[in-house]
Amino acid sequence: MGIQPSLLGVSFRRIVEKELTEDFGSGGDITSDLLVQSDVEMSAQIVSRQEGILAGDKVVDCAFEVVDPRLSVEWLISDGQVFSEGAGVASIVGRASSILKAERTALNFLGHLSGVATATRRMVDAVADTKAKICCTRKTTPTLRALEKYAVRVGGGINHRFGLDSGILIKDNHIVISGGITEALGKIGRRGPNTAVEIEVDTLEQLREALDCGVGSILLDNMDNSTLSEAVKVCNGRALLEASGNVTIDSVRAIAETGVDYISSGWITHSSPVVDFGLDLAF
Amino acid sequence: MGIQPSLLGVSFRRIVEKELTEDFGSGGDITSDLLVQSDVEMSAQIVSRQEGILAGDKVVDCAFEVVDPRLSVEWLISDGQVFSEGAGVASIVGRASSILKAERTALNFLGHLSGVATATRRMVDAVADTKAKICCTRKTTPTLRALEKYAVRVGGGINHRFGLDSGILIKDNHIVISGGITEALGKIGRRGPNTAVEIEVDTLEQLREALDCGVGSILLDNMDNSTLSEAVKVCNGRALLEASGNVTIDSVRAIAETGVDYISSGWITHSSPVVDFGLDLAF
Amino acid sequence: MGIQPSLLGVSFRRIVEKELTEDFGSGGDITSDLLVQSDVEMSAQIVSRQEGILAGDKVVDCAFEVVDPRLSVEWLISDGQVFSEGAGVASIVGRASSILKAERTALNFLGHLSGVATATRRMVDAVADTKAKICCTRKTTPTLRALEKYAVRVGGGINHRFGLDSGILIKDNHIVISGGITEALGKIGRRGPNTAVEIEVDTLEQLREALDCGVGSILLDNMDNSTLSEAVKVCNGRALLEASGNVTIDSVRAIAETGVDYISSGWITHSSPVVDFGLDLAF
Amino acid sequence: MGIQPSLLGVSFRRIVEKELTEDFGSGGDITSDLLVQSDVEMSAQIVSRQEGILAGDKVVDCAFEVVDPRLSVEWLISDGQVFSEGAGVASIVGRASSILKAERTALNFLGHLSGVATATRRMVDAVADTKAKICCTRKTTPTLRALEKYAVRVGGGINHRFGLDSGILIKDNHIVISGGITEALGKIGRRGPNTAVEIEVDTLEQLREALDCGVGSILLDNMDNSTLSEAVKVCNGRALLEASGNVTIDSVRAIAETGVDYISSGWITHSSPVVDFGLDLAF
Amino acid sequence: MGIQPSLLGVSFRRIVEKELTEDFGSGGDITSDLLVQSDVEMSAQIVSRQEGILAGDKVVDCAFEVVDPRLSVEWLISDGQVFSEGAGVASIVGRASSILKAERTALNFLGHLSGVATATRRMVDAVADTKAKICCTRKTTPTLRALEKYAVRVGGGINHRFGLDSGILIKDNHIVISGGITEALGKIGRRGPNTAVEIEVDTLEQLREALDCGVGSILLDNMDNSTLSEAVKVCNGRALLEASGNVTIDSVRAIAETGVDYISSGWITHSSPVVDFGLDLAF
Amino acid sequence: MGIQPSLLGVSFRRIVEKELTEDFGSGGDITSDLLVQSDVEMSAQIVSRQEGILAGDKVVDCAFEVVDPRLSVEWLISDGQVFSEGAGVASIVGRASSILKAERTALNFLGHLSGVATATRRMVDAVADTKAKICCTRKTTPTLRALEKYAVRVGGGINHRFGLDSGILIKDNHIVISGGITEALGKIGRRGPNTAVEIEVDTLEQLREALDCGVGSILLDNMDNSTLSEAVKVCNGRALLEASGNVTIDSVRAIAETGVDYISSGWITHSSPVVDFGLDLAF
Repeated sequence: MGIQPSLLGVSFRRIVEKELTEDFGSGGDITSDLLVQSDVEMSAQIVSRQEGILAGDKVVDCAFEVVDPRLSVEWLISDGQVFSEGAGVASIVGRASSILKAERTALNFLGHLSGVATATRRMVDAVADTKAKICCTRKTTPTLRALEKYAVRVGGGINHRFGLDSGILIKDNHIVISGGITEALGKIGRRGPNTAVEIEVDTLEQLREALDCGVGSILLDNMDNSTLSEAVKVCNGRALLEASGNVTIDSVRAIAETGVDYISSGWITHSSPVVDFGLDLAF
Repeated sequence: MGIQPSLLGVSFRRIVEKELTEDFGSGGDITSDLLVQSDVEMSAQIVSRQEGILAGDKVVDCAFEVVDPRLSVEWLISDGQVFSEGAGVASIVGRASSILKAERTALNFLGHLSGVATATRRMVDAVADTKAKICCTRKTTPTLRALEKYAVRVGGGINHRFGLDSGILIKDNHIVISGGITEALGKIGRRGPNTAVEIEVDTLEQLREALDCGVGSILLDNMDNSTLSEAVKVCNGRALLEASGNVTIDSVRAIAETGVDYISSGWITHSSPVVDFGLDLAF
Repeated sequence: MGIQPSLLGVSFRRIVEKELTEDFGSGGDITSDLLVQSDVEMSAQIVSRQEGILAGDKVVDCAFEVVDPRLSVEWLISDGQVFSEGAGVASIVGRASSILKAERTALNFLGHLSGVATATRRMVDAVADTKAKICCTRKTTPTLRALEKYAVRVGGGINHRFGLDSGILIKDNHIVISGGITEALGKIGRRGPNTAVEIEVDTLEQLREALDCGVGSILLDNMDNSTLSEAVKVCNGRALLEASGNVTIDSVRAIAETGVDYISSGWITHSSPVVDFGLDLAF
Repeated sequence: MGIQPSLLGVSFRRIVEKELTEDFGSGGDITSDLLVQSDVEMSAQIVSRQEGILAGDKVVDCAFEVVDPRLSVEWLISDGQVFSEGAGVASIVGRASSILKAERTALNFLGHLSGVATATRRMVDAVADTKAKICCTRKTTPTLRALEKYAVRVGGGINHRFGLDSGILIKDNHIVISGGITEALGKIGRRGPNTAVEIEVDTLEQLREALDCGVGSILLDNMDNSTLSEAVKVCNGRALLEASGNVTIDSVRAIAETGVDYISSGWITHSSPVVDFGLDLAF
Repeated sequence: MGIQPSLLGVSFRRIVEKELTEDFGSGGDITSDLLVQSDVEMSAQIVSRQEGILAGDKVVDCAFEVVDPRLSVEWLISDGQVFSEGAGVASIVGRASSILKAERTALNFLGHLSGVATATRRMVDAVADTKAKICCTRKTTPTLRALEKYAVRVGGGINHRFGLDSGILIKDNHIVISGGITEALGKIGRRGPNTAVEIEVDTLEQLREALDCGVGSILLDNMDNSTLSEAVKVCNGRALLEASGNVTIDSVRAIAETGVDYISSGWITHSSPVVDFGLDLAF
Repeated sequence: MGIQPSLLGVSFRRIVEKELTEDFGSGGDITSDLLVQSDVEMSAQIVSRQEGILAGDKVVDCAFEVVDPRLSVEWLISDGQVFSEGAGVASIVGRASSILKAERTALNFLGHLSGVATATRRMVDAVADTKAKICCTRKTTPTLRALEKYAVRVGGGINHRFGLDSGILIKDNHIVISGGITEALGKIGRRGPNTAVEIEVDTLEQLREALDCGVGSILLDNMDNSTLSEAVKVCNGRALLEASGNVTIDSVRAIAETGVDYISSGWITHSSPVVDFGLDLAF
């Protein structure tokens, strides 16, 4: 099955236009307007300065297309594929002034999203051959959630909740306010037929109480690995277990080996470094 | 003089609303709606999990205010100030359900912007007692440029161009298209009285040619430190010099010691890790 | 526990402004501008012309507040409460011209949302003392989904998926494309820890196959009541069962008595008649 | 003359995008992304589950086009034409995943607008062979006014004011504030050359006073049919007469037979039930 | 009766925010941020550099309020009033940096709208003591129609159509397409009860034909004054007459003296010079 | 080098759609809908009623394209070229109803922008053979800045600051707040490498102080011509000099002959009269 085409459609053209507007201001590219005759045509390549996983090809297409529909963009690889340092990933042909105007917007998106996909893939690779799946969280970069969630999928990760309305996740504050785990879970009978329930626990005791309530998924927050291993034993398959807290590239393998089903990481979306891409012109 | 109040005003309320909308979806906080009675009041603290420089207090105010104008937010420190690990930086009092709804949006902004400010400050501190100033670039996170540029200022950095229309910056591709440095600089006579000109050079030879044309600022791209030192000598104060390329926390001090006026870093805006904040409730 | 305050916040101010803009056009209320002196103050009442359940008080507040922040709106009842024919539900005091300008927008929202809440309540009351809960669907009025979902909650109903990303719902077309129920359910292992799964079946045979796959919720589409009863027996508590198709006020009780867990209705959101409200001025 | 092409152009693409965004959330169609390979092509039909009048073909085109410009949509009938129960009204060919993503948005618009057109046509047919024309009002569904007004025209109805600035309509509250009918009409001399005037009256006495002032159109509010008949006689062609209040499919014929020129109905826009359409896939 | 308060409400806050955003770009007021400490308070006056009629006070209030809600703005005169050269029209007290940021936006609106109002008043005064009323047209400045129409009212003028849906205006091209005046007027029976009809004629012969059809308003396009006088005689009160074409401050009096009811001018909205205002600070 | 293609791309499609929406309201072109059959095709010409410089061809293309993508628009001249009175500048072929709907929006933009370009060119021509360049200012028509700045370039003028973040311009109020010219200039060391500095002076004494500080550009505000001449001598090439204040078509030549480098005019953007264009249909 191909990569999910869920970027098709509505959502990202607006954000691309917004970013172009942010970069153009009221005057546009005043340098190119002075130096580049409007009828000069050329071709250019988007070249990676480091290895990684591509994410954002459609967004880049959109950036060039909004600036100048006559630009032609061809991808040498597509979202989800690996590229090495120095590799050309796309070539663009058309008016030089149009290519230069769209360059920064295109690269800002491509670098950011490929950064998320690459970070995700590193996590995914680190837990290979374990049962653990890597999840993202709602700790995303403001206004980029949908794109970052897509990049996580491209990198082989799994999306946790898209927003507060995607599922019921009972966190520590909810438990305190509700008066306890059993009390909290007792109040959620009125959920829809397609609404999942997960609860966060900090201790094995809480875990046992949650399991007794029959909840389907349990978030193990900030437990050390030996406690996680114990939690997996206590659970014994009665619920899906998600580990979170202090998840890094270095720590993730050991966490996965405790036997949890999911490991969630905010880092892959909010703090993964961009992949460095450049645009090289050719005449 | 106080920190620049340029966040006052128009721009960021829309982006805060957009992020809240992204998090609320069409159903809002379905967990809190089931578990938190609408008349329960409480107080909460925003607590840092690591040290850093605060940036984004007004944005956080806005997030809570949009969700519930009756929430009261008080800051223990304000933008530009240092906080240590575990420090409370703000307290919020009001309806528990409102606080929980706004939490993620508020923290996503605060973490991201404080991350940029903190990274900037680290760079600024690293070059202390040199003449070099730390600049950001147009390599910003899509749609967050204005906020990130603000966070750079908060961290003690200086803003380079806000967009393509903020000044003339002649880059390598422009030079090639124009047929050379002298030719390119010769074409920009028709600039406005308040439009600066900078040109990018890769070699000392190009530097000399640019200096001979009398340009005010010159970007030294990807030069090693000994070449940078030589460039400073060649320039001899005739223009402002900006170094870019391979600028990291580890390399920035040595670059500064070459005597350049500015060092520009994309990393501080596009790849700085977030500062981790949490929200702790109290009754 | 009070009614969910999830209307607090972001989403509906924009839609109220849009509707006011739609009604004002470029000229505003040209009749009142000719006939009503700007300093005439008065009080008015929103009066129901029929009985029902109130929904939309905050939206109405917003409409009057956007037109003139000095208007004072007081509610005699609030969302979720019953009103009888001829009852005053709110009183507004302030400039007559402002009240008249906002009148139609306020009443259009209040009538529509109270219509949804009232229809929902009728369904809910019809199935009282059965285990069945009334759900809405994604068959909502374009652009009003969040508000209509809220009105359903106000009327005592339960929200099904808010959008395509709220949960996995495998419908007939998905089953055909996947090559069967078992095949479809086999492909969804890669879901997040907080993502529910439901599958639509048309026959008892399909129901058995779905149950054997261990899915949590099953949508029984367009089954007659005797088949539904049989389905409940076959299921025997192994999954939550939702009935849909041909659900009307007249038919819903009998459906509920088959023992299904949920009955979903598009009619309560897309075709429920408005509640008729008027605005009576007093000097 | 063909049906008015006034849907051509600006207004509805935005509302279609908004509705798609509402349905996609931040995650898109997570079910189809898991189950439908992105290169599977298929054809589908939009099929009516009941008879009616089509309205919204261009809006549906737009929904499919926004999601995937390569989808091909062909209409078997077009706006304003009658369809019977079970009839195919359009066929769509292209990527299965794209068709499934757009399905609900397309059908929500088509069902709603065809519902308005069908309700209007029923009213229009009921008054056939009388002089009465069926009008809509400003009692429309929030944010859908332009589309609903279009659907009314498609159904054979006539549009009353589009907004508060479309014409002068002096209602009961304006009369009270102005101190009477003659006083109110005396104040509107300062209208533009292309601005119509209509006044609402409740009694024959008020009607006579309005006629004496020479107003062009008079709204007869909530009069019973014998009073309406008397009003027609009193008027004797000196003004256009519009009846409103308690207009239903059952009552409209008798109202028309009183001889009024217009009968206005809020029901056709705000409470007409949707027409039920489904989407059937074929490989 | 006071001036129409129809600017109250929705429409112009968005356009004010858009203009502020346009002026702020991504960096805000970089000059004031460097030079003005954020806690410096001061007072300032908006001073006219020429005489005129004020229009736009609420828009100016909005500009200052959006930038800094703590600014206090007081008007010495209000919309519709005359000011002389050098007069202070408003005073603002608050943070200096906030006042300076909003200055240009506030003055751009005030100058433009007062320019429209002042030009309108000059036209209105020129035709004093004739029956002619001055109208605007749809020839407005892009995106400013609602505000310009308001300024026309402030200046004593009358609004013609707000948009294409405000009334039926049959222009020369419509007549040609319809096959003649009688044919065109024959097709418009299907208008609403509150929709006015006007037709454009170029000759007295066309005028006679239009009058015979009983149309309520007639636009006399580009007729010389003696033809206009003849037209008034021919009409003899059977319809309202509007003159358009070549209307200037110098020509308008003579046109009015022909006895027409309305004179419409595009110049007052699209080409009236701004009124020059400045902002003077005081400490 | 061709005219700058900086209108290509993002910014103006939104403003065109907004203006069309403003003109269409909720009902669209109700006149053409009644009188023009939807399948009538025709051709039309945009004809100038006076001579001028064309600006806005792409904006007009956009207006027709948004209304009906099947319209074909061909330009006889393009932006920056001169046209004489009565000249056809573009021809449009397609559905008559579509052409009529877009007409006013297209002409409003074309007239406004050509007005700005034409006024600019008149200024530019008036100073031919002097060293002075004509600049625009931030005194633009609200929300049209980017388009007006473009039209200034088309007319041969130069753009001053696009917004408050385009460069540092120290005005009289900043100087007062800073405590003097030297003090103000002393505070701006912390500017970016690509940020220009200009300061406004009112007297020769202030000029000398500014020159001593080594600032690159100086704005001479409201000086008479003999003072300007003296200022040029005092400056002696040490800085670029810009004259502003009381700049008219009649005064600009004499100002230029004083030897200043730039003359800035608000009139060319905020008060230039539109160029009158009409649309003539042909069958």
